[in-house]
Amino acid sequence: MNILWVFAHPDERSLNGSLRDSALASLAEAGHTVEQSDLYRMGWNPVVSAEDYGHDPAQRMQVATASSTALRNGTLASDITAEQAKLHRADAVVLQFPLWWYSMPAIMKGWVDRVFIEGFGYNIRRETGGTRRYGDGLMAGKRAMIVTSMGGSEHTVSPRGINGSLDELLFPIQHGFFWYTGMSVLPPVLIPSADRLTDEDFVLAEKQLNDRLKTLFTDDTIPFRHQHGGEYDEKFVLRPEHAAGESGVRVHTRFAPVRGK
Amino acid sequence: MNILWVFAHPDERSLNGSLRDSALASLAEAGHTVEQSDLYRMGWNPVVSAEDYGHDPAQRMQVATASSTALRNGTLASDITAEQAKLHRADAVVLQFPLWWYSMPAIMKGWVDRVFIEGFGYNIRRETGGTRRYGDGLMAGKRAMIVTSMGGSEHTVSPRGINGSLDELLFPIQHGFFWYTGMSVLPPVLIPSADRLTDEDFVLAEKQLNDRLKTLFTDDTIPFRHQHGGEYDEKFVLRPEHAAGESGVRVHTRFAPVRGK
Repeated sequence: MNILWVFAHPDERSLNGSLRDSALASLAEAGHTVEQSDLYRMGWNPVVSAEDYGHDPAQRMQVATASSTALRNGTLASDITAEQAKLHRADAVVLQFPLWWYSMPAIMKGWVDRVFIEGFGYNIRRETGGTRRYGDGLMAGKRAMIVTSMGGSEHTVSPRGINGSLDELLFPIQHGFFWYTGMSVLPPVLIPSADRLTDEDFVLAEKQLNDRLKTLFTDDTIPFRHQHGGEYDEKFVLRPEHAAGESGVRVHTRFAPVRGK
Repeated sequence: MNILWVFAHPDERSLNGSLRDSALASLAEAGHTVEQSDLYRMGWNPVVSAEDYGHDPAQRMQVATASSTALRNGTLASDITAEQAKLHRADAVVLQFPLWWYSMPAIMKGWVDRVFIEGFGYNIRRETGGTRRYGDGLMAGKRAMIVTSMGGSEHTVSPRGINGSLDELLFPIQHGFFWYTGMSVLPPVLIPSADRLTDEDFVLAEKQLNDRLKTLFTDDTIPFRHQHGGEYDEKFVLRPEHAAGESGVRVHTRFAPVRGK
């Protein structure tokens, strides 16, 4: 299978860099083809601007309109189209990053912002109400997974940990980005206490990651609800019979996902 | 009072730009002093790198260590220290941005990543276990608020809306960044359906925003729990008697916040 590995760390010699090297080697050994977007090494520009779209700077710019127009007209910046081509080839996408402020480093957020424009990651068709998103996005059929490290201990992102439960912290990425664009989402791989791993801890973290990669195409994915599955009403609010009496981001998952195997 | 307004939109002529202009005028009229960080206009660099810290590129870099060392040694990049000086002067911080992929545009994420380093926004003191964060961070005493726009309707970020409830979508920013660094957090101002506002809708949105700014220093803030308030155990997990039987990001708020006044 084809895997796109997107990596965001300023130092190749970091824990993340070492885990990445190991992961890419084990994927190749398993017979997969891996492409990489090493965003720091590429000098990736994370800032959305009118220049990305060949947009006339004298005209007011609505980002969604300018970007989808550029996609249709073939005037998108070449660094964006190169990433889109990698995504078209990929059966699975892995985002690896240190968790900075409970989200992606800016360089990776800007990879998402610039690459996944309307018409590529999703389609808005106001005339028909048939927006393609949430399971039905244009990336449907691909799998996606987060691999992330954090300084805090695992307890701190447990269901009642002070930093917030990991699933819900990652909801904007896992549901709002992966699932929105149609990708099926695997539970994340987390390396906690990352600034104080012993050599033995590293071996365990490496094994945990490589074990998860072995089942990248067979593990159960998080059962997020489909936009057009009948569970949401015409205003895109979950109908009362589903997750009855509950609210919050959790209601968009049909049941608790299986964590790895 | 002193207000730092941080703005991230690529086009000054946008809805966000118009609302920003109106907000700054009304704050000045109310007698406040406003400083602005208009990140696009400043050409803000959002990418954390070794150059920010005067770090020897031949040495492996741990970001938290390299950045806090540079802060102590006075070798931080000058664009970072300029933002830190603005923050020191501010009584309140407003982040205004279009909601892209349920989070900040990359240029603003990189403002957070680069400016709020250890020793500035928070302190880790492993020897004493006395990390200053979550209400006790180094920004304590300041207020903070998000002003954001989205293409989707308000229903879609309601408690059971398809995009996820707004409070929980913004938890990584409001709790993981604002509250972590000690800032007291005001409920956000949301402008939904932003790509199809009528002139009348704009007037309402402008009024909603300016009304909220009038009570910026008096509105109730979100009652997030303090790290050292006794509610968390020694592993920073919420003790069972608080939000008993519940889990997820919601348990870190003591009760539902009052929405504006």
